[in-house]
Amino acid sequence: MPVAVCPGTFDPITNGHLDIIERSAYIYERVVVAIGRGYGKQTLLSLQERQELVAGCVSGYSHVEVAVFDGLLIEFARSRGAKVIVKGLRAVSDFEHEFQMALLNKRLAPEIETVFLMANPEYMFLSSSGVKEVAAHGGDFSGLVPALVSDKLKEKFSSASG
Amino acid sequence: MPVAVCPGTFDPITNGHLDIIERSAYIYERVVVAIGRGYGKQTLLSLQERQELVAGCVSGYSHVEVAVFDGLLIEFARSRGAKVIVKGLRAVSDFEHEFQMALLNKRLAPEIETVFLMANPEYMFLSSSGVKEVAAHGGDFSGLVPALVSDKLKEKFSSASG
Amino acid sequence: MPVAVCPGTFDPITNGHLDIIERSAYIYERVVVAIGRGYGKQTLLSLQERQELVAGCVSGYSHVEVAVFDGLLIEFARSRGAKVIVKGLRAVSDFEHEFQMALLNKRLAPEIETVFLMANPEYMFLSSSGVKEVAAHGGDFSGLVPALVSDKLKEKFSSASG
Amino acid sequence: MPVAVCPGTFDPITNGHLDIIERSAYIYERVVVAIGRGYGKQTLLSLQERQELVAGCVSGYSHVEVAVFDGLLIEFARSRGAKVIVKGLRAVSDFEHEFQMALLNKRLAPEIETVFLMANPEYMFLSSSGVKEVAAHGGDFSGLVPALVSDKLKEKFSSASG
Amino acid sequence: MPVAVCPGTFDPITNGHLDIIERSAYIYERVVVAIGRGYGKQTLLSLQERQELVAGCVSGYSHVEVAVFDGLLIEFARSRGAKVIVKGLRAVSDFEHEFQMALLNKRLAPEIETVFLMANPEYMFLSSSGVKEVAAHGGDFSGLVPALVSDKLKEKFSSASG
Amino acid sequence: MPVAVCPGTFDPITNGHLDIIERSAYIYERVVVAIGRGYGKQTLLSLQERQELVAGCVSGYSHVEVAVFDGLLIEFARSRGAKVIVKGLRAVSDFEHEFQMALLNKRLAPEIETVFLMANPEYMFLSSSGVKEVAAHGGDFSGLVPALVSDKLKEKFSSASG
Repeated sequence: MPVAVCPGTFDPITNGHLDIIERSAYIYERVVVAIGRGYGKQTLLSLQERQELVAGCVSGYSHVEVAVFDGLLIEFARSRGAKVIVKGLRAVSDFEHEFQMALLNKRLAPEIETVFLMANPEYMFLSSSGVKEVAAHGGDFSGLVPALVSDKLKEKFSSASG
Repeated sequence: MPVAVCPGTFDPITNGHLDIIERSAYIYERVVVAIGRGYGKQTLLSLQERQELVAGCVSGYSHVEVAVFDGLLIEFARSRGAKVIVKGLRAVSDFEHEFQMALLNKRLAPEIETVFLMANPEYMFLSSSGVKEVAAHGGDFSGLVPALVSDKLKEKFSSASG
Repeated sequence: MPVAVCPGTFDPITNGHLDIIERSAYIYERVVVAIGRGYGKQTLLSLQERQELVAGCVSGYSHVEVAVFDGLLIEFARSRGAKVIVKGLRAVSDFEHEFQMALLNKRLAPEIETVFLMANPEYMFLSSSGVKEVAAHGGDFSGLVPALVSDKLKEKFSSASG
Repeated sequence: MPVAVCPGTFDPITNGHLDIIERSAYIYERVVVAIGRGYGKQTLLSLQERQELVAGCVSGYSHVEVAVFDGLLIEFARSRGAKVIVKGLRAVSDFEHEFQMALLNKRLAPEIETVFLMANPEYMFLSSSGVKEVAAHGGDFSGLVPALVSDKLKEKFSSASG
Repeated sequence: MPVAVCPGTFDPITNGHLDIIERSAYIYERVVVAIGRGYGKQTLLSLQERQELVAGCVSGYSHVEVAVFDGLLIEFARSRGAKVIVKGLRAVSDFEHEFQMALLNKRLAPEIETVFLMANPEYMFLSSSGVKEVAAHGGDFSGLVPALVSDKLKEKFSSASG
Repeated sequence: MPVAVCPGTFDPITNGHLDIIERSAYIYERVVVAIGRGYGKQTLLSLQERQELVAGCVSGYSHVEVAVFDGLLIEFARSRGAKVIVKGLRAVSDFEHEFQMALLNKRLAPEIETVFLMANPEYMFLSSSGVKEVAAHGGDFSGLVPALVSDKLKEKFSSASG
């Protein structure tokens, strides 16, 4: 049964991520959402918090699993028997970076294909860092993230300023 | 059983097209190569010639079928019960055009996803029109197209100049 | 009173065009929608048809006028005392072309600024040629164009096939 | 009276920034140059220095005001009753980033439009960071920044190495 | 002695072309400006007119020669013993197209390198087709083309309308 | 005798860098590979290590020299009497950044031209940072870097984890 991996740092998961995951769940029989630890990145949310939020958002899909990975994404994908890595593209700058990653990964693991889905236009402007910036300044981020995430961000930023 | 459609004009099919078709055949259980008639385009090869060449190139894959379509691609995809349209991306300019097509098609047929594969770097410079230009000027196009196509092009251009 | 010019061929006007015109009408005190004759282009609609459709779509705005221009856009803008030309940007390829046009126009008429508005994501995939292609193949183009335009296109294409 | 906001960090203001501000002053009746504090960025110049330099450069325009903002740009724009935010575009990479910012801001504040002006080709290569790098290495940056800024940079870097 | 080829259709040669040719003449010991016949393109100027104008513009350079080529550019370059083809880049869209051409040519003739020069910002908006459009509408194209070309265009368009 | 400078940080030199250097050595009579100290960057390899690896990789070319530079690249190029700086382009994002650097350098040193070579498609996905990431996670980076570099990286990362 073909497995597709949807990787990301998910700090936090946005409605844009969720859209890509749901569309993957529509076209693949088994999806693993793979959360990178984000070594060397300063994350707002702990790995456990990110994992809980992603798991909460995809709990309605019995064929979508959430996992954490260390090291190279393709090693993780291999370990799960995945044939496909799914990435969303929002813009040309995404395209360029993803293009180089896909070629490097193809070189390292020729048996795994990276496939791309175009972001829903509604979420094209959406990034985890944009959401965090809006949240940090007390802006209104409803509609940008699932309700679970919205609650967590409010808690984070109110405790930060409280 | 999920069906994927690989559309194109294939005038003629190149090694770049074939690479995308073969990778699609690797990740999807059933692939339909869909040849657009190319109304309003001046093609070098007749629809029948294009169809024969594509069919010859994919004859080794029992789960790859060749078909011709008229009208809107998504109507064809629907008629075959396809969930997925597969397109190759060679460059940013491809990206832009394909992006707009994918969004329009998503609007017209929300149940069909367009997925993208990055072109193999080896075929990144390769287009049907480039091949025809090289062939027309007597340049060496071996390695750019399958042998079947190479023979057909030689025949076309020698008869043209003969 | 500053005048802004919104130029185009409008063959036909789409919801994307209308969005740019309405946003221009929001930020400028007087807007002239300038319809290029489209010499050298094969248009589906006659100049008069395009003019009637645009006029019908903007009839609710007392400070938006519809006009036809020949020759260079900047000469038309000058003749109307416009300080500003407004263009919509949908994508990087738009950006490049518009960028060169804006620089050339600036050179020819330093007193006229070209300003750009980003397309609404909802209309980012939308072009007159896309609409015509969908319409020609009997696809559903509701939501892509104003109702007036929809009626005209149905009339055009039913008479064509009738 | 419509207000336009020209935001930036201005560390330091360059001739490219000044060109955009002057063109904004030409097409809008009231312009507020909005200096972001640059939290989380290491700036060469203090907020007060940046503010003095910008103010010195625009002192000839009675309808251009200089202000400092904290938090989200759109909140500042709202507080000033601005209808328009003006940004300069130098290149495709600017375009992409500005495009996402503009869409996010539109979502947060639908009543404020972001409009873009293409950079003057003469200043297309010009960025504050480029100027600082040239200055730090003792290169000749005359013609890249206003005279006021040039003096300040010389002072900064001579005291650094003195 | 290394030879560099500067190819184009030159319908007509612009100040942007001339800038690239002059910079090539500065860095290469021998330069051949190669005028493509432009088969399949509708040119304003005859091959002979284009050749005379290019020759007139480079007459001051003893090491720059003007020639006409048929067929594939790389075959011409080979016949002249050229190691290098020089192209100007104005924009990302140029980049993409030139990139694919360079890769195809490299495949056909590995011993010939394509090198790129960035267009002078002053000429970044400049194309032969832009010049012709301005000229056709009676706009002012001084400063966009050499004086020789300006005279020829005036003659062409006055006789057309006379 | 014209000198060409190939600049970089080379942390470490990859097969992509080496390809650009070798192609430069083919078209220029004298090539200086210029290693920037990388002030303000955290490098994996010391300046001496980078220098030894580059020197080892180009030792077969008598007309290629390796040097270290401080400060502005164009000052270094001037001090060597170079007419040309050679850069490789892998992608649009490279293009944009290099474009702005080239224009700034042209402004600072009009007598030095920056020329660009398109990356070999085989190395288009390749960057020093990608190589380091693969190496750090124990991935297989043979074929991405010369053997000398491969040995050094293995030594670095085994001692790090040993």
